[in-house]
This record gives sequence, C-alpha cells and structure tokens, in this order.
Amino acid sequence: MPPKPILVNGKPLAEGRLPAVCAPLVGRTRDALLAEARAVAAKQPDLLEWRVDFFQDLADTGAVLDVAGQLRRAAGGIPLLFTRRSQREGGEPIALAEPQVVDLYRAIGAGGHMDLVDFEMGNDPEHVQAVREASRRHGQGLVLSYHNFGETPGVDFLVQRFAQAEQLAADVAKVAVMPRHQRDLLVVLDATLRASEERAIPVVSMAMGGWGALTRLCGWAFGSALTFAVGGAASAPGQLPIEDMRAGLALLHQAVARAR
Amino acid sequence: MPPKPILVNGKPLAEGRLPAVCAPLVGRTRDALLAEARAVAAKQPDLLEWRVDFFQDLADTGAVLDVAGQLRRAAGGIPLLFTRRSQREGGEPIALAEPQVVDLYRAIGAGGHMDLVDFEMGNDPEHVQAVREASRRHGQGLVLSYHNFGETPGVDFLVQRFAQAEQLAADVAKVAVMPRHQRDLLVVLDATLRASEERAIPVVSMAMGGWGALTRLCGWAFGSALTFAVGGAASAPGQLPIEDMRAGLALLHQAVARAR
Repeated sequence: MPPKPILVNGKPLAEGRLPAVCAPLVGRTRDALLAEARAVAAKQPDLLEWRVDFFQDLADTGAVLDVAGQLRRAAGGIPLLFTRRSQREGGEPIALAEPQVVDLYRAIGAGGHMDLVDFEMGNDPEHVQAVREASRRHGQGLVLSYHNFGETPGVDFLVQRFAQAEQLAADVAKVAVMPRHQRDLLVVLDATLRASEERAIPVVSMAMGGWGALTRLCGWAFGSALTFAVGGAASAPGQLPIEDMRAGLALLHQAVARAR
Repeated sequence: MPPKPILVNGKPLAEGRLPAVCAPLVGRTRDALLAEARAVAAKQPDLLEWRVDFFQDLADTGAVLDVAGQLRRAAGGIPLLFTRRSQREGGEPIALAEPQVVDLYRAIGAGGHMDLVDFEMGNDPEHVQAVREASRRHGQGLVLSYHNFGETPGVDFLVQRFAQAEQLAADVAKVAVMPRHQRDLLVVLDATLRASEERAIPVVSMAMGGWGALTRLCGWAFGSALTFAVGGAASAPGQLPIEDMRAGLALLHQAVARAR
C-alpha cells in the first residue's frame, strides 16, 4: 500500500510524507485571526485550517473574502484549508442558514485564496453537490468529513463513511470520532487501514480526547494522511501542541525505519 | 480496567506505572556481561533481563550462579529477570539439553539472585511445571512466554496464549510476535486488551520489527505491563534505545493525560 498524500495544486503536502500536520486557526475577529495566523505559520505546519465558524463576521461575505486574502499573505506560502464545521458535528453556532453557507463556499471558491475546503458529507446532498461543483470549478480540493463527538461507531460504519466521501467525489475523506474505550482506537485504525487500501483518494482519521491522542500520533502508520496539532489554540479535544507532534512523529518514524 | 503492574517481591515495577521498561543483557563472557550490566543499569531501566542463552559458560552451573550474584551487585537494586530463550522461539543455540536447563532454573531459584524467571509455555509440560515449582519455592515470579518470529497468529490464538499462561500458574503472561502487515499490530493490541481485561495476572505483549516498534511504545495503553528497550545491545528486532523509549513514553503519557 503506497502512502496517498493530500495534493494541493497537484503537489503533495509535506513532500508526500505521511502525515502532513495541520494547525487550526480559531480567531473570532479579523485582528485576532491574522495575529494567530502569523504566529502559527511561524511554527511551519504543512497546512493551516481556517475554522470560519469561529469568525464573528461570518455573515459578511465581503469581510470573509477580505480576511481570506490577508490569511493568504500571513500564511507565507503554507496552503490553506477553509472549514465551516457544522454545529451538529462539533462546530460553533453561526448566524447563517445552510443555503447561505453554500453561497459562502461558492464565494470562497471564486475568491481564490483557499486551496482546500472541508464540508460534512452528512449535509443536504444538494448542498454537498453544490460545494463539490464550486470547489472543482475553482481548482480547490474538497475534503468530505464525518465527525462524531459522542462515540465511535463500528468499523463497517466508518469504512462506509470513507467510501461515501469517495462516491460523493471528494478529493480527501476524513473521519473523526470520540473513543469511549481503548478498543475504539483499534476500531478507528482498522477502518483507516481498510479505507486506505480500498479507496483511491487520501484518507484522514483521528480519535479525539485523551486516548485518541495515540491515533493522532500513530494514524499515519495505518494510512491517515493528515493529523491536526495546536499552533495557537485547539479546535478539538486531544490535539497536541505542534512541537510535541513533530517530536513524537520524528521518534515514531525513526523507530519504525530503524528496524525495517 | 485498572492497570496490572508486574510485582517483584510484592512491589510493583516502575511504582505501578505502565509500562515498566526492561533492558536485556546479552554479554557472552562474564567480563562482558558485568561491564554491560553496569553500563545499562546506569540508564535506570525498571528491570534487567539476563538472556543467559547468550552466555558461553551456560553449561557450568557454578559459573552461572557466580555471575548471577555479581549481576545482583552490578544492578544496583534494579530487579533481575533470568531468561533462557529457547532456540525454537528465537534464542541462541546452547549446549544444554532441556532437562539440564530445568536443573539450571532450579539452581538459579536456590541461588536467590534473580527476582523473576522467563520460560516458554510451549516447553514440555513437565518442565514448565518443574520451573513453576522451583520458582515458587524460592519466591521468584514466573513469566510464561510465547514467541513467534515468523508471523502474527490471529487474535483468538493470542488470547489463548495469555489464558494458557495463567492456567499454568504464571505470574506474568508474555506474547511476542512478528507482524507481516500493519493489521497485525492491531491484532496484537486487540489480544492484549482482551487478555488484560480477562486475566488476573499482568500481561506483556509486543510486535517485533519495524512496524512493531509502535506496539513497544503504545502497548501500555492496551494493558501491556512491560516493554523492552536497548541499554547496550538489542535482544530482538525493533527494540528502541532506552533513551528514545523514555522520551516517547513521556510524550505519549502526557498527550493522553492532557486531554482526559
């Protein structure tokens, strides 16, 4: 099974090494967000995710596009992922109705400042299709995602989520779940390994919370192409500081490589 | 599931923290072995394992007992595990027939310098019983072990090995296997988790080789009470240097604890 890295404009993140490290940006105001972006970019993650559901002026499309352009400059060449995490899947409450969110993804596509966008595969199928069309038209990669903050469903259910993302024409399939027992970590890794073998697109997975940190560090060995780590502030439970993530990954990569 | 640490004279290794770290000693001569023991003890593993199948004077019981006493002094208070790994399960070729090996275990029990002994559960049942009786009579803990350097059997088979060790009155059950695919890592961790829930005695497991290094670092989260790391020289493929093991465990423990 050759590793399948995430591509941005045809170029693999992290030079094709698994996993790429993504740091979230969760500032609520434009100034906070730009300061956060500069500080986090200095830590050299492979990808920056703008969690726009934290942004207080989300309903002002002009403001969102303006900030997107400034994030591009602040990122200093690090690719950008645009994510409105829905409240149903762990995001912040926002003032927009879903059709307006789809319009925002269309505007962000046309704006040209974001390289990838993330949208939940559980949204209205017409909205998923609209976001897919807009992102494709503007050369953006699409992450279709599934989140469960309450529990970890079974292996087959998770394998189906990865498959569903591919069926919906995603460029990347992402699954994030909450473990209730150590066994759930094995469920996530097993589903990831199966999906990485069966799917043509890169897959991304993680278990959240304390035990889940082990999957954030080891998921790459089972085919997960991306892991999230904290540059400034966490966007989900269990994320490690980016410095610890880099140190842990270096140690694990070396340990695996040494004896092979 | 409360963690079940390995006990030595009623006291838990590593103050009850999982995993304890064991460093092997593989010197072939008395001088090499004692120099190795002093150097490795300085790195403060929680347990030192004398792999006596590497020792060239193994057939001289007096020499073995003499070295055991000197290892006790060189260990500076670190508990000692005495292991003749059979050639069938990955050990060195030795000059003794099996009944003589059992006699050696009896002598080592009477000598009183070793805290734990390891014997393969796949040995002649009468020999296993004799080693159990000798170790019990002299207050030594008994590790009954299963090794497979060729492959990783299925989860049920491994779960049965842990159960068999308990049925044979072991104080610790140990399983070490060779993964051929990343999925085998999940097999080992799953079997370990099940056994740690079902068995009354501490369990120890590892996958060997490159990918197996991940189980050496993460197995504690699934109930494995002991991991092997290199102080001087490795005794099996995939063992990390003890410094890397300590750093990796510290990082993993902190990552899991932070978000719980």
